Amino acid sequence: MAIAVRSTLQYEVQQPSSFFFVMCAAVTGRQKVVDELLTVAPHAHIDWLSEPATGNRLVALTAEPGPLTLSYAATVELLPFTPPSPPEEETPFAKLPADVLPYLRPSRYCESDIVGRLAFRTFGASTPGVSRVADICNWVNDHLDYVPGSTDASTTALQAFTQAAGVCRDYAHLAITMCRAMGVPARYVSGYAVDLDPPDFHGFFEAFLANQWYLFDATQMAPVDQLVRIAVGRDAADVAFASYVGSAILDFMEVSAVDLAAPGSERGSRFISTA
Amino acid sequence: MAIAVRSTLQYEVQQPSSFFFVMCAAVTGRQKVVDELLTVAPHAHIDWLSEPATGNRLVALTAEPGPLTLSYAATVELLPFTPPSPPEEETPFAKLPADVLPYLRPSRYCESDIVGRLAFRTFGASTPGVSRVADICNWVNDHLDYVPGSTDASTTALQAFTQAAGVCRDYAHLAITMCRAMGVPARYVSGYAVDLDPPDFHGFFEAFLANQWYLFDATQMAPVDQLVRIAVGRDAADVAFASYVGSAILDFMEVSAVDLAAPGSERGSRFISTA
Amino acid sequence: MAIAVRSTLQYEVQQPSSFFFVMCAAVTGRQKVVDELLTVAPHAHIDWLSEPATGNRLVALTAEPGPLTLSYAATVELLPFTPPSPPEEETPFAKLPADVLPYLRPSRYCESDIVGRLAFRTFGASTPGVSRVADICNWVNDHLDYVPGSTDASTTALQAFTQAAGVCRDYAHLAITMCRAMGVPARYVSGYAVDLDPPDFHGFFEAFLANQWYLFDATQMAPVDQLVRIAVGRDAADVAFASYVGSAILDFMEVSAVDLAAPGSERGSRFISTA
Amino acid sequence: MAIAVRSTLQYEVQQPSSFFFVMCAAVTGRQKVVDELLTVAPHAHIDWLSEPATGNRLVALTAEPGPLTLSYAATVELLPFTPPSPPEEETPFAKLPADVLPYLRPSRYCESDIVGRLAFRTFGASTPGVSRVADICNWVNDHLDYVPGSTDASTTALQAFTQAAGVCRDYAHLAITMCRAMGVPARYVSGYAVDLDPPDFHGFFEAFLANQWYLFDATQMAPVDQLVRIAVGRDAADVAFASYVGSAILDFMEVSAVDLAAPGSERGSRFISTA
Repeated sequence: MAIAVRSTLQYEVQQPSSFFFVMCAAVTGRQKVVDELLTVAPHAHIDWLSEPATGNRLVALTAEPGPLTLSYAATVELLPFTPPSPPEEETPFAKLPADVLPYLRPSRYCESDIVGRLAFRTFGASTPGVSRVADICNWVNDHLDYVPGSTDASTTALQAFTQAAGVCRDYAHLAITMCRAMGVPARYVSGYAVDLDPPDFHGFFEAFLANQWYLFDATQMAPVDQLVRIAVGRDAADVAFASYVGSAILDFMEVSAVDLAAPGSERGSRFISTA
Repeated sequence: MAIAVRSTLQYEVQQPSSFFFVMCAAVTGRQKVVDELLTVAPHAHIDWLSEPATGNRLVALTAEPGPLTLSYAATVELLPFTPPSPPEEETPFAKLPADVLPYLRPSRYCESDIVGRLAFRTFGASTPGVSRVADICNWVNDHLDYVPGSTDASTTALQAFTQAAGVCRDYAHLAITMCRAMGVPARYVSGYAVDLDPPDFHGFFEAFLANQWYLFDATQMAPVDQLVRIAVGRDAADVAFASYVGSAILDFMEVSAVDLAAPGSERGSRFISTA
Repeated sequence: MAIAVRSTLQYEVQQPSSFFFVMCAAVTGRQKVVDELLTVAPHAHIDWLSEPATGNRLVALTAEPGPLTLSYAATVELLPFTPPSPPEEETPFAKLPADVLPYLRPSRYCESDIVGRLAFRTFGASTPGVSRVADICNWVNDHLDYVPGSTDASTTALQAFTQAAGVCRDYAHLAITMCRAMGVPARYVSGYAVDLDPPDFHGFFEAFLANQWYLFDATQMAPVDQLVRIAVGRDAADVAFASYVGSAILDFMEVSAVDLAAPGSERGSRFISTA
Repeated sequence: MAIAVRSTLQYEVQQPSSFFFVMCAAVTGRQKVVDELLTVAPHAHIDWLSEPATGNRLVALTAEPGPLTLSYAATVELLPFTPPSPPEEETPFAKLPADVLPYLRPSRYCESDIVGRLAFRTFGASTPGVSRVADICNWVNDHLDYVPGSTDASTTALQAFTQAAGVCRDYAHLAITMCRAMGVPARYVSGYAVDLDPPDFHGFFEAFLANQWYLFDATQMAPVDQLVRIAVGRDAADVAFASYVGSAILDFMEVSAVDLAAPGSERGSRFISTA
């Protein structure tokens, strides 16, 4: 399946500023970047970085005062893998790989250390594996209303939970929090989602089950088999599309993702194996 | 300098339980484990793991109900490096290495995304580099009282700050939070500290300056050149000495660290380069 | 119905200290204090105060260093009123009496301003009146485990909610929070509860329905028709059994309430009209 | 001194809605309402209420869908009282009047129970009385930046403190929090402030010293001797200018206060006795 993704960011830089951007499609065993083009206007020197722990691709640049426009366009080939059957097992605690352990721990926006009792009461009787994570997704959907503007960059999973509202970022955070509290490693995934309305960067999450990562969309708004992944992290703090030091105002932003074969994709809390 | 460290943990396991322990001395370019012995009674199969992103050494084991005792003893040779002069520079944002970037982001117990304004107001005029981090350490010491029992495992840096009390874990968290808010990557370091009173595992932190990590003790209770490091992480969530699934009660715990040459170490917010 | 209540507080006063105690039975239209005796050893001058807004009875005294013992004993006659039928109505917002309005607002431990959406989603379809408040009580019981020591004096309703555990104080706070979010004024009631196990001061709450206050026990541990009320307030901050300036340690505390007719009382989230 | 105050609120009511408005000048021993006019368009029945504990004047009305405009205009005569000298004393804890005690307790937006240690460390050496409260006002001004939009209706004093920014409401909350933590009763005062830029309802606070209430402006933006008081409460939760059940959008709001003698008022954290 081929997806065309595109994003444009326009800033007014007010003081000399340094930026990291995390907006380029990831390169993984199941996601092939067929072609991509990143343009910066006015021209600036770009450094490409890769975070060792995650493989996240970062773009670093320094800009002088004035307008700054980044445009990214790529064609991405997705090679989804459908496991023979959804795993009804979770990797036992003592058998978790060392590189997965960090995703079992609480993080800035996922206070899994607080909700152990709530999680076990709510999901303790679920069938382990994909069923339990699907139960968590459904519970998140039952408990949150999707309300643009109801949260901001400092909102945590439990704050969204008590106010019963959030956006995709908060849905993913709350699902991750409950997975971790149940002993299931979970991580945040940012990406381009086909047919997202309104179009924007999207937040998904992955759960580690039966020794591989499975992708879920807690909002049930976008098909996971059409997500073009950008980056993964413990939570949204790790995958902000832009971070900078200096002074700049984001004037305009546009994001799109189009399935080049235009299929009528199903939606829901479906999963695909993405390891 | 050679340090003898020792720790003993005694549990009463109540249901079959799986554990990860993070209590063994780290092996780094400046810390050599001359000899070490970990004993488990009753005998249990042990898996040694190493976290790829940090090199943290973990011990995994599964125990049946009944008493469980771990005893660790090691002799560690420290090879401190004294840089020619304390760096009066901080690595520019756009030049930070990719593996250091995660330590610039907020984490579960270090809400650096909240305190940018407070940090710049308080430390904006400090001399960059080691001076600024020393100012942060002094400020943390001015603002917190060391009060055992005043915080627990879910206390964040800002909660300790508003109640003006904490223990070494909270001192380190608050210093890390302020460093990150100033654009200085910082990470939590757990370890064995010589002459700590009362003896316990200790929490230090490292700041990334002039392209290497420098070690600080925000409590100013223990000399940093005598710390035997166990593990590093974004905050205390990453370096808990024990985590488990199951049911077990910690009945007894003893920690010690002795300088085999018994020097009269200086104390304070001194730093050593530890990269 | 006659209840014998008794409480003893023993302090070791370390510096000259001033105290307010809120431990004496309230005098209301439905609660008659037949006899009462408050003794203070060593002898100290006592001021009796009555808070105008609530009628709460306070005892003020100043003590020198050394032991301080307060003993209170009273026989209280309860005159419960059973309304003809439980009200299936709530007082409309614009018809609430001015002295009731403060109990509709958020307070220190009852963040009702946060949970409007959660409350309407959960209780919006309940039958108004006593049924809705009973639904809230049942929901609180479903969501919290009664775990002594799980909360402290600074724990809020929403903190107890996210950790799914608390004590009577937290049960009452969470029920009050949800009532207020639904537009039902609610207030905290401290008192002596017959047969409470373990014996202690108890926390109940009242909801304002059909122009009178109805008493509920969110813990469903004690019969509300046997509660001897001490004081009411917006939340536990208003009815602490002791507050002081100085330095003193509470060494011993004993509370009891005995139904002098020893009936086999039913328990549950029953209500009585208490206005 | 005579002040002309005026406020206009325009709503688009979307469903039948019930409102309480707290926008009319208070009537106190030192504030005389010479004339006032409240108009409602379209015409609606108005109930005037007075909260017993505070004397706050509330206006209740119910409106049908459509536009709703309230206009209030009054001429208010202020009779300030200048005490012979600023009190260098605080009312001892055990001598506080019963009706003042509620203002010593923590409230929704003033978590004074958390900051006792911080308060005593910061203000323990201040001269008691007006000096100490002035120190608190100066400290609040040093720690907060006045940033419109930096906080919202659910922001607490400690949240404003950690982010080092807020508006008049937050300044008052933080000052109240510190006063209470030092044993000085303090309460929130809403009002019309002359020359406020931009014009809006303003938040002041009062501290209880030497047996009377003294008025302070923690923002130091408006002269306290020209404040036309509307209402008092434990914090902003008690004095919201409008609260309603139903659905309505505030389309327009205008507030003004003019000193009819147009004096060149001094500004600062001055105080006047207002009891």
